[in-house]
Amino acid sequence: MSTFGRMFRVTTYGESHCKSVGVIVDGCPPGIALSEQDVQPQLDRRRPGQSNLTTPRNEKDRVEIQAGVELGYTLGSPIAMRVPNEDQRPHDYGDAMTQYPRPSHADWTYLQKYGVKSSSGGGRSSARETIGRVAASAIAEKYLKQAHGIEVVAFVASVGNVHAEPPAEYDAGHKDAFLASWHAYWERLHTITREQVDADLVRCPFPDVSAAMKRRIEAARDDHDSIGGTIVCVIRGVPAGLGEPAFDKLQATLAHAMLSIPATKGFEYGSGFAGGSIPGHVHNDAFVLKDDAMRTHTNFSGGIQGGISNGEPIYFKVVFKPAATIGQAQATANYAGVAGTLAAKGRHDPCVLPRAVPIVEAMATLTIIDALLVQYSRQQALQHTLPGAAIPAPLRPFKPADVAAEASQAAASQTDPTRD
Amino acid sequence: MSTFGRMFRVTTYGESHCKSVGVIVDGCPPGIALSEQDVQPQLDRRRPGQSNLTTPRNEKDRVEIQAGVELGYTLGSPIAMRVPNEDQRPHDYGDAMTQYPRPSHADWTYLQKYGVKSSSGGGRSSARETIGRVAASAIAEKYLKQAHGIEVVAFVASVGNVHAEPPAEYDAGHKDAFLASWHAYWERLHTITREQVDADLVRCPFPDVSAAMKRRIEAARDDHDSIGGTIVCVIRGVPAGLGEPAFDKLQATLAHAMLSIPATKGFEYGSGFAGGSIPGHVHNDAFVLKDDAMRTHTNFSGGIQGGISNGEPIYFKVVFKPAATIGQAQATANYAGVAGTLAAKGRHDPCVLPRAVPIVEAMATLTIIDALLVQYSRQQALQHTLPGAAIPAPLRPFKPADVAAEASQAAASQTDPTRD
Amino acid sequence: MSTFGRMFRVTTYGESHCKSVGVIVDGCPPGIALSEQDVQPQLDRRRPGQSNLTTPRNEKDRVEIQAGVELGYTLGSPIAMRVPNEDQRPHDYGDAMTQYPRPSHADWTYLQKYGVKSSSGGGRSSARETIGRVAASAIAEKYLKQAHGIEVVAFVASVGNVHAEPPAEYDAGHKDAFLASWHAYWERLHTITREQVDADLVRCPFPDVSAAMKRRIEAARDDHDSIGGTIVCVIRGVPAGLGEPAFDKLQATLAHAMLSIPATKGFEYGSGFAGGSIPGHVHNDAFVLKDDAMRTHTNFSGGIQGGISNGEPIYFKVVFKPAATIGQAQATANYAGVAGTLAAKGRHDPCVLPRAVPIVEAMATLTIIDALLVQYSRQQALQHTLPGAAIPAPLRPFKPADVAAEASQAAASQTDPTRD
Amino acid sequence: MSTFGRMFRVTTYGESHCKSVGVIVDGCPPGIALSEQDVQPQLDRRRPGQSNLTTPRNEKDRVEIQAGVELGYTLGSPIAMRVPNEDQRPHDYGDAMTQYPRPSHADWTYLQKYGVKSSSGGGRSSARETIGRVAASAIAEKYLKQAHGIEVVAFVASVGNVHAEPPAEYDAGHKDAFLASWHAYWERLHTITREQVDADLVRCPFPDVSAAMKRRIEAARDDHDSIGGTIVCVIRGVPAGLGEPAFDKLQATLAHAMLSIPATKGFEYGSGFAGGSIPGHVHNDAFVLKDDAMRTHTNFSGGIQGGISNGEPIYFKVVFKPAATIGQAQATANYAGVAGTLAAKGRHDPCVLPRAVPIVEAMATLTIIDALLVQYSRQQALQHTLPGAAIPAPLRPFKPADVAAEASQAAASQTDPTRD
Repeated sequence: MSTFGRMFRVTTYGESHCKSVGVIVDGCPPGIALSEQDVQPQLDRRRPGQSNLTTPRNEKDRVEIQAGVELGYTLGSPIAMRVPNEDQRPHDYGDAMTQYPRPSHADWTYLQKYGVKSSSGGGRSSARETIGRVAASAIAEKYLKQAHGIEVVAFVASVGNVHAEPPAEYDAGHKDAFLASWHAYWERLHTITREQVDADLVRCPFPDVSAAMKRRIEAARDDHDSIGGTIVCVIRGVPAGLGEPAFDKLQATLAHAMLSIPATKGFEYGSGFAGGSIPGHVHNDAFVLKDDAMRTHTNFSGGIQGGISNGEPIYFKVVFKPAATIGQAQATANYAGVAGTLAAKGRHDPCVLPRAVPIVEAMATLTIIDALLVQYSRQQALQHTLPGAAIPAPLRPFKPADVAAEASQAAASQTDPTRD
Repeated sequence: MSTFGRMFRVTTYGESHCKSVGVIVDGCPPGIALSEQDVQPQLDRRRPGQSNLTTPRNEKDRVEIQAGVELGYTLGSPIAMRVPNEDQRPHDYGDAMTQYPRPSHADWTYLQKYGVKSSSGGGRSSARETIGRVAASAIAEKYLKQAHGIEVVAFVASVGNVHAEPPAEYDAGHKDAFLASWHAYWERLHTITREQVDADLVRCPFPDVSAAMKRRIEAARDDHDSIGGTIVCVIRGVPAGLGEPAFDKLQATLAHAMLSIPATKGFEYGSGFAGGSIPGHVHNDAFVLKDDAMRTHTNFSGGIQGGISNGEPIYFKVVFKPAATIGQAQATANYAGVAGTLAAKGRHDPCVLPRAVPIVEAMATLTIIDALLVQYSRQQALQHTLPGAAIPAPLRPFKPADVAAEASQAAASQTDPTRD
Repeated sequence: MSTFGRMFRVTTYGESHCKSVGVIVDGCPPGIALSEQDVQPQLDRRRPGQSNLTTPRNEKDRVEIQAGVELGYTLGSPIAMRVPNEDQRPHDYGDAMTQYPRPSHADWTYLQKYGVKSSSGGGRSSARETIGRVAASAIAEKYLKQAHGIEVVAFVASVGNVHAEPPAEYDAGHKDAFLASWHAYWERLHTITREQVDADLVRCPFPDVSAAMKRRIEAARDDHDSIGGTIVCVIRGVPAGLGEPAFDKLQATLAHAMLSIPATKGFEYGSGFAGGSIPGHVHNDAFVLKDDAMRTHTNFSGGIQGGISNGEPIYFKVVFKPAATIGQAQATANYAGVAGTLAAKGRHDPCVLPRAVPIVEAMATLTIIDALLVQYSRQQALQHTLPGAAIPAPLRPFKPADVAAEASQAAASQTDPTRD
Repeated sequence: MSTFGRMFRVTTYGESHCKSVGVIVDGCPPGIALSEQDVQPQLDRRRPGQSNLTTPRNEKDRVEIQAGVELGYTLGSPIAMRVPNEDQRPHDYGDAMTQYPRPSHADWTYLQKYGVKSSSGGGRSSARETIGRVAASAIAEKYLKQAHGIEVVAFVASVGNVHAEPPAEYDAGHKDAFLASWHAYWERLHTITREQVDADLVRCPFPDVSAAMKRRIEAARDDHDSIGGTIVCVIRGVPAGLGEPAFDKLQATLAHAMLSIPATKGFEYGSGFAGGSIPGHVHNDAFVLKDDAMRTHTNFSGGIQGGISNGEPIYFKVVFKPAATIGQAQATANYAGVAGTLAAKGRHDPCVLPRAVPIVEAMATLTIIDALLVQYSRQQALQHTLPGAAIPAPLRPFKPADVAAEASQAAASQTDPTRD
């Protein structure tokens, strides 16, 4: 429903034409220094009117903390935040509004679900619903940064057919080039910063590509059309051990989070769809000890193995379809099924990608903090069970003393123990 | 954790080397005729040993219903099912087993999470965990079929670089060919049957492609290597109105379900990643009245708009990486970080795709029945609120009488009501 | 945490000294006519300053609907409501405030839990947290009344040692008097109205008792002391079938709801603690057909059998301890453990019972609507499975035709089928 | 539904006449030494046939661990346990069985809920459902004991009108006697052991009272009648900080747990229903420093203040009604509403209290471990936020240095900060 998370629980409310939109954040750690100044910047990155590439409305989206913070510190109690709908307009759409469900929008399906519809048609499918998510994530982000140095950075990787150079598809004949392109990609993901991303209007930090993207968006705008694209996101600094076996694998909750963003059509992490074509002996991320830490040579796993983070950077890609509301005339049917023509007038984004960057970061952040708080509980329990326990060899962590010298030199053979 | 669903709740247990694996299904409707004969066939489709393309073990995977069924009918109480681990082997892997975490497997991350590991390393990451899911889905499937005529069919769409012909990418210069390829794709999805899929060893119902896939799998097997691929799944007959706005959009819970299957790396539905390149005026699915039902001309939406089913077929694609356990020697590090070489011996699948087909169908089925049971509750409430209520015009369903004759003929113009 | 309910989900926020308190109601049926005028009356019944028996502060507690309602009707989307903290005071308690955790209050335990505390000490333990619950219940109450004619009425049954006449304890020697007193009690519960309750200052609709209660409260007030008591609540018109077997029996969720109200110490329903002394042959509620409906002669079950409502009135009793904050000097220790004396100054209730009546009603209402919406889902599923199913005799509903004439006349004997 | 807990999640299955009953325990800490020998003793305490005061069936109730344990240690994965229904009988109750819903049993309400019924009528309302709970609690109990020294002990406090001496009701004229009786009660709760309880057939460790209870039960048995009573439970060693503000106060989840046990009618903790009559200046538990720990002089709070544990022993009382199935002839109606007489034959308990003791302990244990694992997560977060944070004075823990010498000697005055 309208709640996300188990231990860091975010509940949002609000649609286009109500008094305010907002959020209750339940389960936030106490003792975090927090004020509206910590939250506003992420909302500003999300809000409309940032450039002539986005909708020209200029809503201030000013956040007001209602509760959960005293004297500048979080209390551990629910943090409520609201953002008034300053640009709220009267319900004056007239007959036309009520006649045509917008193709590929939520107007018709909401009506099937609820029996009634909001005067705006899509109700909660409005992107204003994401304001609460972004506000909540600003708090989570502050905690993750301070407590673990975790960083979340997303950028626009494609608009229409304009792509920032992706890593290569697998081709057995050009394995070296394939691997080189992936290593270059990982290097880029390791170092990219939010400042670099925000320095660009399209939020694509590769100037040549960005210029082409900008032209593609302007073309859509001039055609009264819309265009989609993809966003890549990297999460750096996540400790190993986050995520749950079975149904709540970390990639499963990340996918859930991403596909809950309006207009998304797909999600992939690590090698993603390319991974279907890469043979196992190339795809497997071999282990290596670096600076006393277990690391992997490659990162096709995208930082997650068996549903659980392994300490490497987590990265994924999300695709957005073109916005459904367009100014071009469309031949369609009205609610009664009578054929006609619909042409939406007024303000709308030709391309939602630039503004979607902070929303993708928000949902990634909320997913990680929730998995982290769940794992905290397990870690604490281990401190009670493991010390002193006589765990037998096959179950306990391997210790250096267990390794016979020859074992580490000779090739070890083993039977697949997992089976099935 | 180990539970999936809100109203049709599935909780699984079991790993490779325990007495049994199984499941508790809570919230199943009463009055369904059910016996083990309804469940066994789906387990047989999932189990190893079906051909020489899969692992040669021949576990019978015989399901035993423990509770929740009496005299051949479900009672509404929890249905427990167990499948004995007949081929259970002793914990005799020796030192080698404890020394090397398999690259890209769950061995190392499980140890980080739990502080201990199962003797098999990956524990619950074993594909045997999915037995409970498949058993549960067999019950759900029976209900969905009988009550709503819902059908779920999946098939292998690619293995390595061998693809069943996918629909075209968007190319403004060849729009007609683009649309034709998608219409052909939708037609195929409308008509494909599970029988056609199962008639093929690889579960790819296109003979030429299947033959090439078979060769690709055999090559991987002969190289002691592994290979992944993609599975496409279609769900036909889903009523409109399923799924929740905001966090639990139907595509979000489907993505969650799919990415919870071992070895998956990505999910897309409808136009998917191609949708990022298609302009809005092409991508929008215009409405049309057919046989008194609101339908859409195209189905780039994949049967879901605004997170809610619209009555069109739902379809999606899932990608699987190559299996992590391979016989080839791999240079990697042992648990202590000492470099060495690992070569897994024994039984393992060179390609999990054919056996993953019923698992994909299972998770799709469990997602749909849960959304359906949630929507049942809303529908019942509407019968209490809507009749007789004087819902004002912008909120109520559009009625034919509301349409002025000219309105349906002239071009209707409307302002984007959703904004943001 | 701060959310209650599965299908009608209520999430509250707010403490004493923040900008506002409020609530998000998720899962409310669409199409209910709703405005702030539907919610305000229940808040007025709860707010302080209603008489000189309660705290003299006069906070207006004006509710503002933020979202989820358009043109006077609920949309099905989350309904957010906020109530500004008009009487918010600065954090100026000085050293004394920080020194003494109030005995039997939440000051010390909150600090243990969160590591920090709110400036008011108890934070969310403030009764202001219940404002959100009461606001949410006003919506639920409107639906339950309109859709099912369900009524919820609570009243003060005791203050200190002053009791409205309770039904008798069991005494084998006076069985008739025992039964008579219970029948009188049930009759009272069947007919009492909220108007009768509100006509009395103490919310005890029995004038003689109320006068004595008033004197008891005034004595506490004059002694700078406090006093507790009990509230009885009846829920009439609940359909049979609500509640879940096993962990979520209807009485279990009702008890959870009641014990979540600040200052409560116990809950009993039906015969309650007296039921421990009544022999089975007296306690069992025999069935009888009245007006074509299955009813029971007695109602020791309190409307719930096996955790599921049976259609009879549900009634229960909740006990409240005396308020912890009192003006009398108390010998206690400060946060550092140093012995000293604490005497709270300022505004506080000598007896919370009259104001707790709408809170008890609120939690009862929220529990019932949630169970009802869950049961809606099951009912809808039954319409798909049962018609036409050949359910065998022991499992299907008994039909009159199944009864041999003699069977209904002769004494039927049966073995206890449930066993254990 | 059939799942209890958030982090230590227990899902049960099974009814009277199925193959087995059982449980999945999800979220159990890894590294606990565990075998069936740890679980069986609690099941033996619960099972029928322990004496001629209980049902004469002698079911062995042998537990079999299915998964989640390897080489004698828990893995962190779900622990599944099953207990075969050895004494399973055929569905041969005949017509009589199908004709009469037992008064005050679940037969009729289950049928209303599910549209079908189990052949035994009550289905999951059978006490056999609690086997899974008791098995799960045996694991939790082992962890709580080893990690925190937590002990859970319950005993029978009354049967019918036979009561183990309870503490006195408040009487202003005999305040000293009142306090003395409570101090004696607390002393008893501090020291009572499970061995003392089990040494007695009725599980009432006060020989004189137990003898009278035994006579009361035998009288019920001889009358083909049944009788209820109360159980008191104490939980010692619980650390401060467990439980959640608002809806999931520790007493609320305890009440939920207790009222989910079949045949319970009420719950009270600490002063309980007597607390309604005790004035605040007596009821408040003043603080005192003992051995460097903050303790309270009295414990009317029952170890919980503001919904959160304070480190004192937690104690509560639960009342059980008389078992519904009795051999005496009862005038009632059959399923068709036709009046008749029902006399249950066969095996049933005249008094469930002795066997309910381990069930009460089980639910108390499951409630505490779940609250503990949730609080673990918060504690871990505090270690990241609090060190070094400049929390201002009113929010941070009071430090001895903050106390001026005179402050601790003079009477401190403070305004009620919580208000409302």
